[in-house]
Amino acid sequence: MTEANAIADAYLAVWNEADAGCRLALAREVFAPGASYLDPLMAGEGPEGIAAMIGAARERLPGLVFSRGSAERHHDRLRFTWALGPAGAAPIARGTDFATLDGERLAHVTGFIDQAPA
Amino acid sequence: MTEANAIADAYLAVWNEADAGCRLALAREVFAPGASYLDPLMAGEGPEGIAAMIGAARERLPGLVFSRGSAERHHDRLRFTWALGPAGAAPIARGTDFATLDGERLAHVTGFIDQAPA
Repeated sequence: MTEANAIADAYLAVWNEADAGCRLALAREVFAPGASYLDPLMAGEGPEGIAAMIGAARERLPGLVFSRGSAERHHDRLRFTWALGPAGAAPIARGTDFATLDGERLAHVTGFIDQAPA
Repeated sequence: MTEANAIADAYLAVWNEADAGCRLALAREVFAPGASYLDPLMAGEGPEGIAAMIGAARERLPGLVFSRGSAERHHDRLRFTWALGPAGAAPIARGTDFATLDGERLAHVTGFIDQAPA
């Protein structure tokens, strides 16, 4: 059973990947074929759709990096917290994602915002 | 769109219902027919299975009451926090539940423990 931290880190690495081709390759490793993502502002379907969604989101987040907080898994369920901010500086936003797993890959991810950018 | 607080309150009312018949009736209002519940320790399927699971859990929680913390909804996704403790006294446990909705009823609920009983 893959550790919660490792899955969350691999997921956030997709968000932090600047190169579109690498981002898609990472997304195909992290997300199951039928994966979906939904938060209050964005939605994506499949590894390709989610990678494209993240690419569009990154254009609105220049210079910002996602970092993991706590992560926890039981059965095929995962939750983890994240922070978004300039590297080495205080976060400007925080959130909690909840996910179901398909094997060791992410199936359905729901994002919630704990602290929105000012 | 039913407010997140109202759904979470209706859900916790099932947990707090002492009478098995009333608990089942409440569960059939709150949960969709294909509903499921899963936390690190317990699982239930369908309103009837979940009501039975809660009944068994309540036998291990005499005199304790669930109260709601924050609740938030976007799309068909819900999260809320809860505390468990003697009425009017400090909680002995806390948790966060994530759920998907089927219409205005709970479909799949995943529980996570934020603070386990000492």
